[in-house]
Amino acid sequence: MTTVGIVGAGQLARMAHQAAIGLGVDLRVLAETPTDSAAKVMPGVHLGDYRDADDLRRFAKAVDVVTFDHELPDPAHLATLAEEGHVLRPAPATKRFAQDKAHQRRELSRRGFATPAFADVADIADVEAFAGDHGWPVVLKAPRGGYDGRGVWVVANTAEAADVIDRTGVLLAEALVPLVREVAVLVARNPSGHAVAWPLIETVQVSGILRELVVPAPLAPDRSDQARSMGLRIAEAIDLAGVMAVELFDTGDQLLINELACRPHNSGHWTIEGSVTSQFANHLRAVLDWPLGETAALAPAVVTVNVLGRADGTAPEEGLTRALAVPGAGVHLYGKTARPGRKLGHVTVVGDDVDDVRDRARAAAAALGEPIDEEAS
Amino acid sequence: MTTVGIVGAGQLARMAHQAAIGLGVDLRVLAETPTDSAAKVMPGVHLGDYRDADDLRRFAKAVDVVTFDHELPDPAHLATLAEEGHVLRPAPATKRFAQDKAHQRRELSRRGFATPAFADVADIADVEAFAGDHGWPVVLKAPRGGYDGRGVWVVANTAEAADVIDRTGVLLAEALVPLVREVAVLVARNPSGHAVAWPLIETVQVSGILRELVVPAPLAPDRSDQARSMGLRIAEAIDLAGVMAVELFDTGDQLLINELACRPHNSGHWTIEGSVTSQFANHLRAVLDWPLGETAALAPAVVTVNVLGRADGTAPEEGLTRALAVPGAGVHLYGKTARPGRKLGHVTVVGDDVDDVRDRARAAAAALGEPIDEEAS
Repeated sequence: MTTVGIVGAGQLARMAHQAAIGLGVDLRVLAETPTDSAAKVMPGVHLGDYRDADDLRRFAKAVDVVTFDHELPDPAHLATLAEEGHVLRPAPATKRFAQDKAHQRRELSRRGFATPAFADVADIADVEAFAGDHGWPVVLKAPRGGYDGRGVWVVANTAEAADVIDRTGVLLAEALVPLVREVAVLVARNPSGHAVAWPLIETVQVSGILRELVVPAPLAPDRSDQARSMGLRIAEAIDLAGVMAVELFDTGDQLLINELACRPHNSGHWTIEGSVTSQFANHLRAVLDWPLGETAALAPAVVTVNVLGRADGTAPEEGLTRALAVPGAGVHLYGKTARPGRKLGHVTVVGDDVDDVRDRARAAAAALGEPIDEEAS
Repeated sequence: MTTVGIVGAGQLARMAHQAAIGLGVDLRVLAETPTDSAAKVMPGVHLGDYRDADDLRRFAKAVDVVTFDHELPDPAHLATLAEEGHVLRPAPATKRFAQDKAHQRRELSRRGFATPAFADVADIADVEAFAGDHGWPVVLKAPRGGYDGRGVWVVANTAEAADVIDRTGVLLAEALVPLVREVAVLVARNPSGHAVAWPLIETVQVSGILRELVVPAPLAPDRSDQARSMGLRIAEAIDLAGVMAVELFDTGDQLLINELACRPHNSGHWTIEGSVTSQFANHLRAVLDWPLGETAALAPAVVTVNVLGRADGTAPEEGLTRALAVPGAGVHLYGKTARPGRKLGHVTVVGDDVDDVRDRARAAAAALGEPIDEEAS
């Protein structure tokens, strides 16, 4: 049997285990606690701290291939493991594109991929110079560690910028791009160089948090093809092994790279019910250098709505039977303790008409968690 | 969290765990060994013997609802557990329809459901009397415990019948029905009385073992509807809680009941990829008295081919990358030790054209296990 180890035991590892069961893959997770989302549903739980080099090494020794649930491991630790001969997929140099936003911007733009204008900024003078070229507002980003809107600040002027930079130090400055929508391209690639891209995904963000996926994204076919082709070229450029999500800004004229995640990603959750092969199955197949599965959608419309913890703290389980009563609702709960705004699950509906499918997915998700506030979107 | 316990830890429990993860159901299994198919992939493993009343009771005490991976538990033990207040779904009286073939024949025919002609036979004179009415050959069946062709004998004359009856004792005699094909109707019903039926399934048997499923079964729509309606009426008649498969003989003129399984069943494996809701998800939802999910097929053609152990004993894992290279092949391995003829996995392909889909499913299954011998079918 082949043993794959995932560093981290969140919902991505949990859903990867569902795929691992079918493929006969012996999956292990490096979990912080026995009640981590994935640790609750599988036997191969190794307890340890992903921040600790020794815990990581012990885990790597127990598995054939190391892969990841998140972007947080220390790049220096990963480089050491790779030097010691452990198989990391993706490799540390690939993972850096997801871990270090400044590196991603520099390297991808150098290779001709379209990104928003950007610059490293170390002090307020740097920000003002950048705003002089590109105008206010300016987007400031922590180069590492941010996600779900954390580590990103949109500043309107020098005073706001100074406030952020005083607190954080070195940042990445970016031009605020006028958006028509955000989309994501999901790609899997194996070490043999075989790569596949799923249909383009529209990602609907509210307050910086991904709330909803719509597949296919409502772009003209040639622009969708352009995005998927960009995703496949990036995968090759960074020598991807595994699944990657490239989040893109659609300006109407251009598709600009926003962020990369070198792992299964929230934008790919629709693939469980909606595609011939799920992102989790293809991630395992990719990191094992097995042939990849087909990525076609199984229906004309697929919508996934995230379940976020209610403001009043009630658990999604309390609304489960109401959610299951919604026709066609594919409910996924992550087994996590409810906290306001926390991602606790998602619902996918597949069908023929996007409005119908969206309505049903939203209704089921609203039974489980905080409803989407249309005003805030 | 709601805890469901499955007596038995074979591949049905293993695939039920995949569904349990999504629904947030805390699944436990009563396994004979830690290497049982389901025990290898989940944390909630209770070791014990399903033949032992105390082991069963200990298990029942640890869960909210008891359900089943197979038909083998002693009906007297189940009746005792139910009397003690444990929740068994299906209930012992329902399960008896799957455990006791003579009971099933008597009770279903008494309620007007069509079955082949049958009689209890205790000696050779009884068999000869039955053959006098219905002709040779006669089908002799062990009333309990047989599956996959075991416990069924087709006898051509008095001498062959005497040989079987000398070895086995009391049997059920049935008329050998001239078949066009075999089909199965898969139904889920919850204790509140809500019931759903999946599209009709053609089941292709070779040497008494289920090899292939084709959905939809190639019957006229009104005859398929008749079969599904029969399945729903049987579910109500026997007060089903959970999933049930009714295997039917299609004589061209009539649909006659062959056997019942009151649990997820091999004939429903296509539902994982091929239907809005899998049989495993609906079984859990049914035994928890939750709303049931939609049963529509996701594509015009779905074919599942069982993977049986090769005559040379090689494990399916050896052919896995070849199977995964077949476009659209949904591979399921059960993690079981390879033995010739043993069910070790299955492959499902969904698509538009049944011949294309069947070819691909067979190609992938042949990479993993013993190819189907067309001559023997």
